[in-house]
Amino acid sequence: MNNFKNSKMNVDALFLGPKSENAVFFKEMMEYSITEHMHWRSGYHPEDPDLISTVDRYAPEYRDTLYRTEGILNQLSSKLKTTSVPWFSPRYMGHMNADTLMISNLAYVMAMMYNPNNCAQESSPTTTVLEVEAGLDLCAMFGYDVQQAWGHITSGGTVANYEGLWVARNIKTLPLAVAQHPEAQHLLNGKSEKELLNLPVSKILDLIDELKKRHIFEEVRDLTCRGVGIEQGKLGKLLVPQSKHYSWMKAMDILGLGQQNIVQLPVDESYRTDVQKMRETVFSLIERGEPILAVVAVVGTTETGSIDNIKEVIKLREECEQRFGVSFYVHIDAAYAGYACAMFRDENNQFIDYDALIKRYHSEGIFPKEIVWPKPEVYESFKALNQADSITVDPHKVGFIPYSAGAICMKDKRIVDLISYHAAYVFEEVQEKQRKTDKVQNVLLGSSIMEGSKSGATAAAVWAAHRLVPLNLLGYGKVIAAGVTTAHWIIQEINQCEPFIIGDRQFSIAAMPAPDFHMVNFMFRESGNTSLEKQNQLNKRLYELCSYASGRTYSNDFLTSSTSLTHEEYGDTPLKLCRDAHFSDEEWQKVRSVYVLRAAIMTHCLRDKGHFDNYWAELKNIFADKLQQLVDEENKLNHSNYKISV
Amino acid sequence: MNNFKNSKMNVDALFLGPKSENAVFFKEMMEYSITEHMHWRSGYHPEDPDLISTVDRYAPEYRDTLYRTEGILNQLSSKLKTTSVPWFSPRYMGHMNADTLMISNLAYVMAMMYNPNNCAQESSPTTTVLEVEAGLDLCAMFGYDVQQAWGHITSGGTVANYEGLWVARNIKTLPLAVAQHPEAQHLLNGKSEKELLNLPVSKILDLIDELKKRHIFEEVRDLTCRGVGIEQGKLGKLLVPQSKHYSWMKAMDILGLGQQNIVQLPVDESYRTDVQKMRETVFSLIERGEPILAVVAVVGTTETGSIDNIKEVIKLREECEQRFGVSFYVHIDAAYAGYACAMFRDENNQFIDYDALIKRYHSEGIFPKEIVWPKPEVYESFKALNQADSITVDPHKVGFIPYSAGAICMKDKRIVDLISYHAAYVFEEVQEKQRKTDKVQNVLLGSSIMEGSKSGATAAAVWAAHRLVPLNLLGYGKVIAAGVTTAHWIIQEINQCEPFIIGDRQFSIAAMPAPDFHMVNFMFRESGNTSLEKQNQLNKRLYELCSYASGRTYSNDFLTSSTSLTHEEYGDTPLKLCRDAHFSDEEWQKVRSVYVLRAAIMTHCLRDKGHFDNYWAELKNIFADKLQQLVDEENKLNHSNYKISV
Repeated sequence: MNNFKNSKMNVDALFLGPKSENAVFFKEMMEYSITEHMHWRSGYHPEDPDLISTVDRYAPEYRDTLYRTEGILNQLSSKLKTTSVPWFSPRYMGHMNADTLMISNLAYVMAMMYNPNNCAQESSPTTTVLEVEAGLDLCAMFGYDVQQAWGHITSGGTVANYEGLWVARNIKTLPLAVAQHPEAQHLLNGKSEKELLNLPVSKILDLIDELKKRHIFEEVRDLTCRGVGIEQGKLGKLLVPQSKHYSWMKAMDILGLGQQNIVQLPVDESYRTDVQKMRETVFSLIERGEPILAVVAVVGTTETGSIDNIKEVIKLREECEQRFGVSFYVHIDAAYAGYACAMFRDENNQFIDYDALIKRYHSEGIFPKEIVWPKPEVYESFKALNQADSITVDPHKVGFIPYSAGAICMKDKRIVDLISYHAAYVFEEVQEKQRKTDKVQNVLLGSSIMEGSKSGATAAAVWAAHRLVPLNLLGYGKVIAAGVTTAHWIIQEINQCEPFIIGDRQFSIAAMPAPDFHMVNFMFRESGNTSLEKQNQLNKRLYELCSYASGRTYSNDFLTSSTSLTHEEYGDTPLKLCRDAHFSDEEWQKVRSVYVLRAAIMTHCLRDKGHFDNYWAELKNIFADKLQQLVDEENKLNHSNYKISV
Repeated sequence: MNNFKNSKMNVDALFLGPKSENAVFFKEMMEYSITEHMHWRSGYHPEDPDLISTVDRYAPEYRDTLYRTEGILNQLSSKLKTTSVPWFSPRYMGHMNADTLMISNLAYVMAMMYNPNNCAQESSPTTTVLEVEAGLDLCAMFGYDVQQAWGHITSGGTVANYEGLWVARNIKTLPLAVAQHPEAQHLLNGKSEKELLNLPVSKILDLIDELKKRHIFEEVRDLTCRGVGIEQGKLGKLLVPQSKHYSWMKAMDILGLGQQNIVQLPVDESYRTDVQKMRETVFSLIERGEPILAVVAVVGTTETGSIDNIKEVIKLREECEQRFGVSFYVHIDAAYAGYACAMFRDENNQFIDYDALIKRYHSEGIFPKEIVWPKPEVYESFKALNQADSITVDPHKVGFIPYSAGAICMKDKRIVDLISYHAAYVFEEVQEKQRKTDKVQNVLLGSSIMEGSKSGATAAAVWAAHRLVPLNLLGYGKVIAAGVTTAHWIIQEINQCEPFIIGDRQFSIAAMPAPDFHMVNFMFRESGNTSLEKQNQLNKRLYELCSYASGRTYSNDFLTSSTSLTHEEYGDTPLKLCRDAHFSDEEWQKVRSVYVLRAAIMTHCLRDKGHFDNYWAELKNIFADKLQQLVDEENKLNHSNYKISV
């Protein structure tokens, strides 16, 4: 899969760099990328007559049109320069953004010149194949059997989540459809509706094979919800953690299942799905005879980067199957942290034992000796991913690919037949082709996925990135570890940071302890303040001063993002954070929301301790400046209020 | 909206060109596009320490990583050059593909360097605004009131169609929800369920305003299908033409409505939805008390480019409202031909009167004098577009934008509240901002559309194209007319083409007459052959010889696409084509499918008659060669069969 297994990769050489250090190389390669295509054009039937003559091209209208093109690009550049966000700089620590891989930008442009459409292989003979390869790369990283699994690129994690729920929904209704078909019902003879709604996924997929043998699969499929529509409330509940992304609410709306059929699982003190409460919820649904449509677990929540305990989800499913004969679909939303699965794999794609892993991290210099990552339960979660039925992962997040590139991987490609417009196993054909022959076949990705027309250039970008940066601990592992290391150091520094003295006021800084991945949530607090409301306002204003909201991002010294940890989403879990910050329990009960600054630490630039120390020293100065600015504003406001009252 | 209203545009100067004629300009602009960003980087806090030293960059691993990057790009380029499709050349006439606008490629790359994510304005302060502007450009082109309408970019027409059906579905259930809410039900007092399911869209949207005034909109919305899920069969039928794109089948599956609730409307002899039969279907549904979820009409079908009679759809709805008190949602799938609406608009965005339009086409040289386009009923269809509730249109088709860029426009932006994750009118805020102030606001596109994360670069590409190429007859009109003109000439030549004599066999060529837009369907027929099956095989083999299926597209002389016009999709409409080709009616009844070569004529390069004549002369030679190749293959096969039988 990777052509350069034994050669070492330098992380800095992957990116354009915070000061465009690789500008010369990038420009050369960009020139190469576009001129290759230009020569392809001019070499295509050079005997064809010139349709645009030199005289044409010197006509005033011709020149004028080119000048206007240039003028509009000038305008666009001004706009972009004025208000874009400098993701590339370590001064940006907010959303899941950082510099993107040079190779993926270059591959995107190179392929875009040919403008392939991965909807159909006919329109993308090259890039459809690259998409299938890139999808299998991700399947292999998650530990799926690549002979059985498949994956593809989506426009983002939202669409990948939709597709996961779509297959989960359709497969849930197949046994009901089988029971209705005169020639098929004997396959599930004597099963009650309750039993039909609780079959394990693998059993239902085997049923597809049986139906195909009897040439009645299409007929039965027409009797699933795909053909007849949703029966309100019939398919049971979707269990998602309270910490879920809002795409799950949209998904339940779009797929016709209804948002009220979401059951939100509370989180524990680590902001992960509370395993005990999840078990109780599942058991109580089973007791009430309510089917479970699917359980969604999150690997890297949007707000705190928490990694759900996947091993326990899988264990719970096994337990339910054995104790109650009840099963359910498991989808993992690993949009954020999915690529971190590469950190656990060696050069032969083997999942490394925990102790050996930590040892290799240190011996290879992937982590400094003082950092031991991950926590054992996080390790177990990544190890258990290959037991999930499907996984969302975003190349445009921790894959360092430019937008838009999400992906979904499915454990068993037979499931595609439940959503496919065509009957055939189109993907087997491609993989067959890859293995055996050079004969081009007409693969229609568009008939087996949610989207239709889609840029083949995205597939080229992801494919090329995977070729350069292997999906193992020496490739992506190294790049991602840089951010995890920096996150670790930042939390350490925050915890031992001296208070900031601004005039007669004193502010300290606190971080949420020990994140599972590289998301740091932190906040400022003012000594003497006992009002949580005031505390939230302080941090909200600091966010505004450290974001696009206060004007040009370019001249800003530091940029971050923010979020509110609310009772609605997290129950009383944030109470601990309030207590640590010396707010009374009553304050939490009153406000029920803690506003925090939120930083996904994705930069690769601060993995050297010396660089980091300089950075932190400067960041402390910036924080002091921001606090000063905030105090000045307040003083000015008080002063003008004073004037008015006089 | 357009900065260069009075200056003339040259069509050839918009594209890189069939021989990369604009290579020097394009390379200069590409260099500009990327270096602007590089200087933005290096100018951002130049006081920051160097994190990557020169010494670092000369380390062997560093150089090695760069070499590997180059090597992978070499590989990618070889792959692309080997199997890509030369859309840019007039030798390609197949799918809706041609050269793409230089400015959109450049704008894409320029913006991609900043990697904006249009999911949230915080992650795309520049490009979210550009997306809203580009969306309103399209709304204005369709004749929507831009104060009231809104549009946005999707990954493609498929997703746009989903979103259209999503709003149509959710709005259909709002009256039912109102009737269930104790504080709201008086608003629809005494209406029967049947009446509730047949309210006009505008009435339901007014209801939203009433609910908001009473602060119960969110509560009622939770009672729509969004909250409670789909009630099987309750929402009635979706009427789509038989000629529909397969995304409508996918849409009914995904949205939980069930594919069996599609009613396919037959087409007439022009391959357009049969107006009379549509009326009968609608009346019979009304008689049976079955609600109509929505009627979909197609502006530019995938297979024949037919343009449904939109005026009649709108008229029918009015008639149903007046005669029966029954209304329904109207969505237009104008993915293919939507941009052609620009051809009807003058420099002030006024829809031009028919006679004046034809006159201007000729006086401006947009069409040669002998071509009168469009047919009056096609004109009326475009004129009536502004009465539809929503419209799908693909910038990556006739907008000449690289993939992936679809779009949807909605007549009344209040409808967004039925699918929005947030309650607020987020788009009013942006438009407000555009009009009044520079204050940046936190617009979350992702909360009001189907997709989540999405490339802001796409928005830049579409926005820049609209700035350079106005959405009127002198801008896009001129570019699109080049293709329509060429299509017209091709059909003319096909109709008067002498037969091809290959050995002792004779082949003629025939085209489906008078397309609505620029899709030409044509086929070869062998003199003396009376078997439709054999005729289909002939054309299928010719397709293979003129496509990627026969190997490298690059060395091919001519490339096209193909399709089967089947009884399943078109009823007996293709019978006429069979009769014209002297096949008996029995042959059609036996085979029920006509295989045709299918060419969307999108090239701008053959609008000069002299160029076209040369092209056609060459194309006839190519056809003769392909036929010769086919005959040789058959002879060889017969010979080897002969040998075997000996």
